[in-house]
Amino acid sequence: MNKDISKIVEEILSSFDEEEKLNLKEEDINLDWLEFDNSSPDLLYCDIEENFCVIKPKEAIDNFIKVKTDRITPDGQFNVNISHLIDHTLLKPDATVQDVVNLCMEAKKYNFASVCINPCFVKTAAEVLSGTNVKVCTVIGFPLGATTKEAKAFEAKQAIENGAEEVDMVINIGFLKSKKYNDVLEDIKAVRGVSKGKVLKVIIETCYLTEAEKIKACELSKEAGADYVKTSTGFGKGGATVEDILLMRKVVGRDLGVKASGGIRDFEKALEMVKAGATRIGASASVKIVNKEKSDSKGY
Amino acid sequence: MNKDISKIVEEILSSFDEEEKLNLKEEDINLDWLEFDNSSPDLLYCDIEENFCVIKPKEAIDNFIKVKTDRITPDGQFNVNISHLIDHTLLKPDATVQDVVNLCMEAKKYNFASVCINPCFVKTAAEVLSGTNVKVCTVIGFPLGATTKEAKAFEAKQAIENGAEEVDMVINIGFLKSKKYNDVLEDIKAVRGVSKGKVLKVIIETCYLTEAEKIKACELSKEAGADYVKTSTGFGKGGATVEDILLMRKVVGRDLGVKASGGIRDFEKALEMVKAGATRIGASASVKIVNKEKSDSKGY
Repeated sequence: MNKDISKIVEEILSSFDEEEKLNLKEEDINLDWLEFDNSSPDLLYCDIEENFCVIKPKEAIDNFIKVKTDRITPDGQFNVNISHLIDHTLLKPDATVQDVVNLCMEAKKYNFASVCINPCFVKTAAEVLSGTNVKVCTVIGFPLGATTKEAKAFEAKQAIENGAEEVDMVINIGFLKSKKYNDVLEDIKAVRGVSKGKVLKVIIETCYLTEAEKIKACELSKEAGADYVKTSTGFGKGGATVEDILLMRKVVGRDLGVKASGGIRDFEKALEMVKAGATRIGASASVKIVNKEKSDSKGY
Repeated sequence: MNKDISKIVEEILSSFDEEEKLNLKEEDINLDWLEFDNSSPDLLYCDIEENFCVIKPKEAIDNFIKVKTDRITPDGQFNVNISHLIDHTLLKPDATVQDVVNLCMEAKKYNFASVCINPCFVKTAAEVLSGTNVKVCTVIGFPLGATTKEAKAFEAKQAIENGAEEVDMVINIGFLKSKKYNDVLEDIKAVRGVSKGKVLKVIIETCYLTEAEKIKACELSKEAGADYVKTSTGFGKGGATVEDILLMRKVVGRDLGVKASGGIRDFEKALEMVKAGATRIGASASVKIVNKEKSDSKGY
């Protein structure tokens, strides 16, 4: 834990009495009970096996105010349910309106962080999820990332107007591979510019990148002010790997979230990702993940 | 051949002398020699084995004026080289600027109808192909078709401003499957509205559709004023089939072009498609197709 968090936690804890402090250690806390904004990139680190997460200083303070004193451990850690880390995802081109409604109902039931759906369904999802804690997440320049920066910005702006609170954009992979780094940066900035106050995740599509390109993509995402870097679209030739999560976490440090996505079909895989440093999971097999079933589904 | 074409051809032929008429039958004509706009949806029917194409009445007249009299056969047919029917395609997300430039150079060399590339490369392709007969074709709402109609229109408008002369849009597959036919229609119309005077092809992504949905998609494309219907993105679970081309041709009649795309990797497959009624071929293995090599490439 870094010094800033320790200091804040110390301050907060100084307002607790001794008995409260002792009780906190024993608490089995679930974020279901908290007025906690799952959608912000506030989770710094999670350890599902040990059953805790550490959140960012600013969000920590904001949330500590809302949260009852018995909801944090003395070292500033929250217990967390993996469902809160999941973007419940349906991006298949043949998904129907009814499929999207069903997805939203599942997300409500399991208290997933968000539903991640294609832009044409944002309005529908926002209506169904109105009044819940489940956010609407959509995808921009998806899945090839090869539209123009203006088109990506247009898409993102409209998605937010339609009710999206999180946007997962794909970087311009071809420009990155062409070493047109400034163009890659401007592409991300264009979307960042229209998504202030919302969560921006940048999909770097690791399966097509060399290690050096993965590092560069993370650096550019951070420079452009993204909230998360994300591994995969689920439409490329590969998905999230432990090695990529470790690398991405190393590059972005604790300032950004890391989202693992693509091929995460059961609890064990999700757990591996979180242990490697992921603070968000993109999955279509989300219900199976939280129920710890083995999944037989393919693809995203 | 229908009556209108016969009439026009008759008129034109009446201006030829007898010797010219006789010579025409023997000509081995290649469209390389003609000032012929390959990009317009003017090819009504092609028979590569028999080595002829029939073109639309209006274009026929326009082109007859430009074309020397010895360039048509007495029954209004043109010999055609299959290269003129090919959209030379590179849509992989990791394609670099150099890859696109190389594609354009190949397209120039082989006189392909167009290069089909992602929107972020339209400007580059337009520059490289400036002053040639090869058109720039790009893709809209690609490959999922699940962006909004406004986003598709924005993309198409900008692509045309950047130099695209053909736009291949993906229909909203999810809306079609949800029987939201008016929304599917409005989606196509939105792109048609900004692409007047340019060629609009509508990708119906046959692999996800039932026969009834394929028919509906073609009818809606025709109603919206599209120039072509097109089978596949190359990113779905299947590509062009002879059965689909026959069906699509049947539904759109001779008013629209039909583009076969996805999985067309050698001359035999391309020929099958043309024989079934395709008037355009989308392929990345275009050079192998025209050289009649067997292709080992996968994907689009």
